[in-house]
Amino acid sequence: MLKAAVWGASGMTGGEVLRILAGHPEIELTVAVSRGKAVQPVWTVHPHLRADFPEMTFATPTDALTAPVDVAFLALPHKASWPVISEYRKRGVKVADLSADVRLRNMAAYKKWYEQEHPAPDLMKEAVYGLPELHREELRGASLSSGVGCNAACAILGLAPLTKVGLVAEARLELRVGSSEAGAAPSRGGHHPYRDRTMRVYEPFRHRHLAEVAQECGLPESAFTMTMTAAPMVRGVQMLAQARLSRKVNEPELWKAYRAAVGDQPFWTLSPARPPHLRLPDPRLVLGSNRALTGFSLHEDGERLLVVSAIDNLMKGAAGTAVQCANLMLGLPETSGLTMKPVYPA
Amino acid sequence: MLKAAVWGASGMTGGEVLRILAGHPEIELTVAVSRGKAVQPVWTVHPHLRADFPEMTFATPTDALTAPVDVAFLALPHKASWPVISEYRKRGVKVADLSADVRLRNMAAYKKWYEQEHPAPDLMKEAVYGLPELHREELRGASLSSGVGCNAACAILGLAPLTKVGLVAEARLELRVGSSEAGAAPSRGGHHPYRDRTMRVYEPFRHRHLAEVAQECGLPESAFTMTMTAAPMVRGVQMLAQARLSRKVNEPELWKAYRAAVGDQPFWTLSPARPPHLRLPDPRLVLGSNRALTGFSLHEDGERLLVVSAIDNLMKGAAGTAVQCANLMLGLPETSGLTMKPVYPA
Amino acid sequence: MLKAAVWGASGMTGGEVLRILAGHPEIELTVAVSRGKAVQPVWTVHPHLRADFPEMTFATPTDALTAPVDVAFLALPHKASWPVISEYRKRGVKVADLSADVRLRNMAAYKKWYEQEHPAPDLMKEAVYGLPELHREELRGASLSSGVGCNAACAILGLAPLTKVGLVAEARLELRVGSSEAGAAPSRGGHHPYRDRTMRVYEPFRHRHLAEVAQECGLPESAFTMTMTAAPMVRGVQMLAQARLSRKVNEPELWKAYRAAVGDQPFWTLSPARPPHLRLPDPRLVLGSNRALTGFSLHEDGERLLVVSAIDNLMKGAAGTAVQCANLMLGLPETSGLTMKPVYPA
Amino acid sequence: MLKAAVWGASGMTGGEVLRILAGHPEIELTVAVSRGKAVQPVWTVHPHLRADFPEMTFATPTDALTAPVDVAFLALPHKASWPVISEYRKRGVKVADLSADVRLRNMAAYKKWYEQEHPAPDLMKEAVYGLPELHREELRGASLSSGVGCNAACAILGLAPLTKVGLVAEARLELRVGSSEAGAAPSRGGHHPYRDRTMRVYEPFRHRHLAEVAQECGLPESAFTMTMTAAPMVRGVQMLAQARLSRKVNEPELWKAYRAAVGDQPFWTLSPARPPHLRLPDPRLVLGSNRALTGFSLHEDGERLLVVSAIDNLMKGAAGTAVQCANLMLGLPETSGLTMKPVYPA
Repeated sequence: MLKAAVWGASGMTGGEVLRILAGHPEIELTVAVSRGKAVQPVWTVHPHLRADFPEMTFATPTDALTAPVDVAFLALPHKASWPVISEYRKRGVKVADLSADVRLRNMAAYKKWYEQEHPAPDLMKEAVYGLPELHREELRGASLSSGVGCNAACAILGLAPLTKVGLVAEARLELRVGSSEAGAAPSRGGHHPYRDRTMRVYEPFRHRHLAEVAQECGLPESAFTMTMTAAPMVRGVQMLAQARLSRKVNEPELWKAYRAAVGDQPFWTLSPARPPHLRLPDPRLVLGSNRALTGFSLHEDGERLLVVSAIDNLMKGAAGTAVQCANLMLGLPETSGLTMKPVYPA
Repeated sequence: MLKAAVWGASGMTGGEVLRILAGHPEIELTVAVSRGKAVQPVWTVHPHLRADFPEMTFATPTDALTAPVDVAFLALPHKASWPVISEYRKRGVKVADLSADVRLRNMAAYKKWYEQEHPAPDLMKEAVYGLPELHREELRGASLSSGVGCNAACAILGLAPLTKVGLVAEARLELRVGSSEAGAAPSRGGHHPYRDRTMRVYEPFRHRHLAEVAQECGLPESAFTMTMTAAPMVRGVQMLAQARLSRKVNEPELWKAYRAAVGDQPFWTLSPARPPHLRLPDPRLVLGSNRALTGFSLHEDGERLLVVSAIDNLMKGAAGTAVQCANLMLGLPETSGLTMKPVYPA
Repeated sequence: MLKAAVWGASGMTGGEVLRILAGHPEIELTVAVSRGKAVQPVWTVHPHLRADFPEMTFATPTDALTAPVDVAFLALPHKASWPVISEYRKRGVKVADLSADVRLRNMAAYKKWYEQEHPAPDLMKEAVYGLPELHREELRGASLSSGVGCNAACAILGLAPLTKVGLVAEARLELRVGSSEAGAAPSRGGHHPYRDRTMRVYEPFRHRHLAEVAQECGLPESAFTMTMTAAPMVRGVQMLAQARLSRKVNEPELWKAYRAAVGDQPFWTLSPARPPHLRLPDPRLVLGSNRALTGFSLHEDGERLLVVSAIDNLMKGAAGTAVQCANLMLGLPETSGLTMKPVYPA
Repeated sequence: MLKAAVWGASGMTGGEVLRILAGHPEIELTVAVSRGKAVQPVWTVHPHLRADFPEMTFATPTDALTAPVDVAFLALPHKASWPVISEYRKRGVKVADLSADVRLRNMAAYKKWYEQEHPAPDLMKEAVYGLPELHREELRGASLSSGVGCNAACAILGLAPLTKVGLVAEARLELRVGSSEAGAAPSRGGHHPYRDRTMRVYEPFRHRHLAEVAQECGLPESAFTMTMTAAPMVRGVQMLAQARLSRKVNEPELWKAYRAAVGDQPFWTLSPARPPHLRLPDPRLVLGSNRALTGFSLHEDGERLLVVSAIDNLMKGAAGTAVQCANLMLGLPETSGLTMKPVYPA
């Protein structure tokens, strides 16, 4: 068994990495790092994993760095990852980051959205953007994969197949997100009486993840807007892209473009053309799994397009994708530990 | 007290008319009609109103027509209203319809969306479109008000202030709707295990209510698309319009247009510019009330606009608006019986 | 119009008092006190009431005490009410408290559950327990009504009719409570991802409200246990009492006891014997209203009884009951401002 | 790979058997039977499994019986299983039933609760009650396992450890159940607007599953009551047993009894004594998994006990347990195909 450390292990995406590793046939969790919860049993924070980690306690960062591991998963806040990446790089340990610290290739975009100069441009350049659906070959054997924004991942899996072939003139993205996106820390906006049943449009046009969408889709940020809605679910991201195409197309052309991009991927599936109620995917259909679904519908005018994609934000949008990257970097089967089926209805 | 009959009283919007009349200071429910539930106590279907209607039973249509009333509310299925309207018109009784039977002025649009010739074009022409926010003066003293589509009402209250002054080139409407929109009859799609937590995009571009939106906004249907999502709530409609303006504008121009249209209406309010989390309205904030909220945000490019509006589909989208129309037709204060405050958080 | 001050007006029960006063025909809100939110517009905290209080800002405690009012509602944390009560008593102002500060007659019980000596035993003795369903005549013209525990109120309305006639030997109370019970302050337990869908049994046997139940039911605390479950709803308390009767009875005897206690009360109703699905009440049926429902079912052995009662915790369990007490103390009609109907389904 | 047929494969528990088999390393689904959906692709009914069963269509019963299989899972309505069991027994095929057809040993109890004479008493006698946590050794190599009532399974896993050692005098069981318990067929009670947010106490004392509880706990039915609440969740059963013990005990005695019964079982775990919020289990903590949790709290009087247990009704309460039985009957590792972790928070 390969050995893994998970940093930020008491957080929400950290906990999801733990859930995956609890069933991973080739990677074993040996260190769960949490500055704030050090010494406490892991299951007091993640009670659903008590049977899986009955004895393990959270480790301090200091202790963690002395433990020999083959791979480290960093589920840390933005701007906290890069020093830990540096440490592990010195030790020759593969790193699957989950933060935004090494996602962007463009330093100006980083500065614009994260409001500081990037402290380690070399790391940034070296990292492979951690979405195997687009970067599989680069990830094989790589030593550092970036995190993906969950909203960005959802949007990219909907749009990249078309932007790649130059079909999208502009798109107005509308993202509906579950409450787990905001993490484990209590807040007024996340307080149950206020968050429950909410359809809160908390951002009309701009979201940090636009930078990733633009980068991976190869279009300028101005081609997109990104409207964010806090929706009444715990897990799940769904993207609706109201796109204007760069030219009139017919439906077979779109199927062709999508099939070319999606092909036979293990976790990414095109939704069927019919029945109509299954054509545009619902995040419920991937709950708890590493799967992504993409569907579309073309207006009869041949120019207005609706694309819908859906993922579980903690899985394909964070922890699942990180483990998938680690599998590729470590030379393991890509699906190892990630074969859990969606739980539906739930 | 004026006397009212409610038809379709065992349905979801019918029940909401009953809830309003239970507290109306000037209109009294005297006949609750239900073909299927005739003779049963009203409270067996609407148990929340047992203290209000402890003895009343549902009447048959035949019995109902013999009861002398001042106003009739018709919460009937589409295509079932018009014969009842005709009967009441003969008797000189005011009618507030809730169905789609007399909503459209354009017979071709009716035929296209409801798939038959309209059986009573005269009624159609005579009816006033039942949205007092746009047709207040026509409704005063009128004898027949149409129903409004709940989605249409929500969209119109978001867009009409701008289309009226020629500012909208096109808009992609995205509607999120609660499960009560589909009415009281069980279905696979509405079955709790499948409907709960759902973000089901059940229609990409077309919805019958487009005909009303086009009619009231004075633009061709092709200027709009209407994307429908079944969202995890029981009550509520929220519209997001991703609009492209007909020319570059600045924010003060938009405020001016909205203020001119909304003015000092009793149930329609513009959301505040700040704080940002209250600018784009959430249907939770109007739950159980007859209120409508409209907010907007302009992209820095001055051309892309997001408009958001929110209502309670059973109230402003159906029963509340119908009672408001009846008040105007009967010469009562417009807000009579409709002063209930939103229940929040709930 | 009589004038009212509301203290703790930025909290959850305070907001509900505001919602009621917004529609009260005889009491007008003149001061909304909030130490933490002073100077801010009231609607920034209670956005659903923006149309009702477009200009009002929160007042400081100091400013509030100089405003002449006829009645003060104190929605303050436990142990913060009594000094304010004292101040208002000096000024001859009626006080409807919502806290636990003057609920208990028994100083030892107060000390046991609130872990301090009561600082103002005279106030405690003078206050009338604020549940008009049991203390209507004492409240008429009184000058100080206590708050009620929302769980206690729910339990008492289920059990007092039987304990009063000596029928209950013991009862195991099981309370299911919505997230609004814990108030407006964010917490880990109330964080949406953890609170949503929860059935968290957070207390097996003991709850402070037992002291009130024992007091109002006239039985020792040891006759009861109180099991608390955080249930997936925002509003609502439901009590199930698994009671053992002091002797075998038949159903008509129970109806007689309940009818004697409930009689023709404006807000308290016995659930019907049939249909069976409406016999044992659901808090959804009273949502947003000041109503209470009580139902029961007797085991065929004549000794095991199930009593179920349901209220909206923010209304009959807090704000609604406080306004009802104020109405009685001020000589107004008991139902004034409290005629809102339940919103169902919602 | 061993071959399996699933009958009732278009239903809710049938779909869950399919989900498990999709990841089972030693059993392969070869026939999915559905009378009503025959010929349709399996994924049109179970869209979350489209990637797993892209081509499979539902088979007719007639076709199914000709397919050679090693094991048959029968997720059929009550009274529909036994003829199919007989057919498979003739062919020497192992059967894991999920219905109530062969659950009870006592023919009188069967007649009382299922309102007919049992049509095949021999099958009834031969079947092993399908709860491996209590009948592991009998199931090894057996040829027929019964279904378990999901509520019964939850209750038995809470109480059997104590009834076995004579500690329970009586218990009032209170079950909270998710909407998936009622299956896939739409109904008024399960219609989302009415079912959502509900705490509907639909049965005060009696439930068919009492017969199983009595059988497996070795106490007469009269020792129990079973109060049923439809709770706002899709999956999950939680039992609270308000028990009266047969003698005063202390907490260590209870731990001893529970540890003796639970031991080192793969799917059944005792909840920890602390922290207090994890002592009494919540069904969320086992969502999507085959796990069961049991916790308890003893009143300071040493006689009143609260036991809480929690399962996923579709897994440990139905499909998961059936596959676990099949594993034992077929000589496979007991946990084969059942190692999915709970999805939390979700």
